Amino acid sequence: MKPQPIVSILTDFGTRDWYVGVMKGVILQGDATTSVIDITHDIPPGNIHAGAFALEQSWPWFPKGTVFLCVVDPGVGTSRKPIAVAAQERYFVGPDNGLFTPLYRFPHEVRSLDHASLHGHTQSHTFHGRDIFAPSAAALAHGLPFNSVGAWIQDPVTLEPPALDSPQVMVVDHFGNAITNLPAGAILFTPDPSVPRFRVGDREVPLIRTYGDIDPGSAAALVGSTGYLEFVVNQGNASEALQLGPGDTFSMIRD
Amino acid sequence: MKPQPIVSILTDFGTRDWYVGVMKGVILQGDATTSVIDITHDIPPGNIHAGAFALEQSWPWFPKGTVFLCVVDPGVGTSRKPIAVAAQERYFVGPDNGLFTPLYRFPHEVRSLDHASLHGHTQSHTFHGRDIFAPSAAALAHGLPFNSVGAWIQDPVTLEPPALDSPQVMVVDHFGNAITNLPAGAILFTPDPSVPRFRVGDREVPLIRTYGDIDPGSAAALVGSTGYLEFVVNQGNASEALQLGPGDTFSMIRD
Amino acid sequence: MKPQPIVSILTDFGTRDWYVGVMKGVILQGDATTSVIDITHDIPPGNIHAGAFALEQSWPWFPKGTVFLCVVDPGVGTSRKPIAVAAQERYFVGPDNGLFTPLYRFPHEVRSLDHASLHGHTQSHTFHGRDIFAPSAAALAHGLPFNSVGAWIQDPVTLEPPALDSPQVMVVDHFGNAITNLPAGAILFTPDPSVPRFRVGDREVPLIRTYGDIDPGSAAALVGSTGYLEFVVNQGNASEALQLGPGDTFSMIRD
Repeated sequence: MKPQPIVSILTDFGTRDWYVGVMKGVILQGDATTSVIDITHDIPPGNIHAGAFALEQSWPWFPKGTVFLCVVDPGVGTSRKPIAVAAQERYFVGPDNGLFTPLYRFPHEVRSLDHASLHGHTQSHTFHGRDIFAPSAAALAHGLPFNSVGAWIQDPVTLEPPALDSPQVMVVDHFGNAITNLPAGAILFTPDPSVPRFRVGDREVPLIRTYGDIDPGSAAALVGSTGYLEFVVNQGNASEALQLGPGDTFSMIRD
Repeated sequence: MKPQPIVSILTDFGTRDWYVGVMKGVILQGDATTSVIDITHDIPPGNIHAGAFALEQSWPWFPKGTVFLCVVDPGVGTSRKPIAVAAQERYFVGPDNGLFTPLYRFPHEVRSLDHASLHGHTQSHTFHGRDIFAPSAAALAHGLPFNSVGAWIQDPVTLEPPALDSPQVMVVDHFGNAITNLPAGAILFTPDPSVPRFRVGDREVPLIRTYGDIDPGSAAALVGSTGYLEFVVNQGNASEALQLGPGDTFSMIRD
Repeated sequence: MKPQPIVSILTDFGTRDWYVGVMKGVILQGDATTSVIDITHDIPPGNIHAGAFALEQSWPWFPKGTVFLCVVDPGVGTSRKPIAVAAQERYFVGPDNGLFTPLYRFPHEVRSLDHASLHGHTQSHTFHGRDIFAPSAAALAHGLPFNSVGAWIQDPVTLEPPALDSPQVMVVDHFGNAITNLPAGAILFTPDPSVPRFRVGDREVPLIRTYGDIDPGSAAALVGSTGYLEFVVNQGNASEALQLGPGDTFSMIRD
């Protein structure tokens, strides 16, 4: 039996226009039985780092064979290449602007989407999501061999990892949790057995294990579901309470 | 033929992060042909009453066999139990915090989600949606017998129904309609044959049957699609015009 | 093999309530294998012109046989008719208020949804999306012959096309692009070979081909993916930079 094709979509298109719907239509034209899944369309417009972080957090939870259609593409209409990445038995389709950096730590292969059959009939200069990326994602989901999509690319654009010696907030989520770039391993699995605390502005907050360890309204830091340190307020909004936004720094204190 | 598995999701996660997408991925890992349906992800964060109301309004319209994955969970990381509820030939998975109160008026069975196989490989202390609820919802959708999920719970947490002697606004919807807790039966099917009107602040508004009964811009009350009284403005926003929000009271007047 | 039923939904319901979820449940009750696809639910409340524009932009990209469930219905509860339109080998279900005007330039047939079997068991006066339109869309998707839905309608409500001698902004999208009613053909394929520019308020902006033709932060006009002229700012928000919103006019200048 043919495996169920799945295309999961991650964009900065928002949901108030027809842009996402149109890409779904294009995918279904290839095979109407495809499962088309929204990851999010509310990546801040043009923010490639935020898009890469959301992709890093989501791809491992989808089945092998899933095709990820990812469009955060401030360079549409410039010379940036449309690409596909094969890694971890999944496929990723989008612009070559660093969005797929989280995959490049694994064995991977990157190809340019230059096979003419992958491009839709209509060729706009501004909506490659509809005209190149969606048809390509659909083709891969429906069985096109990866090495048919186009020429091998050896040096895809890669985002610089944030420097670990200056830990900082990467993303503020819907609940106001301020998620940082400090991985669990840098906090918990160290030779120093002391429990650290964290300085944010002029405040110090403790490291806790889960929300239930503090009173409602209290602020703390914990290793969240992302595998990174995040600042939280039990039943509250840490970003507001601690005045923390993307790029804000903090320090870890061990006595 | 195996029935089509359906998992319908209702959360307060918002849609700008990867949280909802990740739960969908987990469900598809169990069976990639599952229909994964969004009800809403914009329940006000942590508002269990609003989540219960949205669930009450939506579950009857889904096919029998549907599994509802419901996560409004301000107590994640405390001792509140993860549970599943079987009622009305459907299943409901989420935290034991009163979210499933609308089901408890029907014959129902509640079980704790303590079977180890229901828990994902990763166990965060903050994202039970991904690590416990989604795998459990998927397992039920894919045929796990309900009595295998865990121990029977006799006394699930139940929300107090709002007192009918103090009718109040429960929810303001996207259109600005102010939906109350006053059921149709308390208005229409009473021994008193007079047609009531309603006092909101210092204004009185009539009871109408449908929007067409009043001029554009006029305020009134009607029994809405929810089965409850709601305050409306024809082609306008009643919440703004009448300055009504959740918790605000009003009175019914019969001459 | 039975073709895969697809119902694509376009509304002004927003996503924070249960309204969209309920319609999806109703569709799945008819056939749980139906693909239910969101186009958008964020049409400005009651804005039929904006709904018609989004529909015009999206329907051609969906497979033949798709049923479009479209509800922008400020007249719910008045005498406006519920209808279905057959055009371009697709079906469209919703209120007869002009929402389907983009289809009427093609050969089409319009019928009233008056067959009793199309109406749900519950009949509210305010939520025809749930009680009439969703069951009708489902029935068409699942094979009901079009001429069974009800009586032929010869004169459906039709929106006036915006006058081309007063070009104006129709829609501002998520990125702040200001999309106008000036079609590509009025700009590019004219006897006058000169390249026009555009006056917006007291500014003049050039016509470009794509974002890469201008520096980041610069404003310009281009023929967008919609086939219409739009005002853009490379990596910025044209609506804010040029203070342009729906209804604002501009002029085309040729030397």
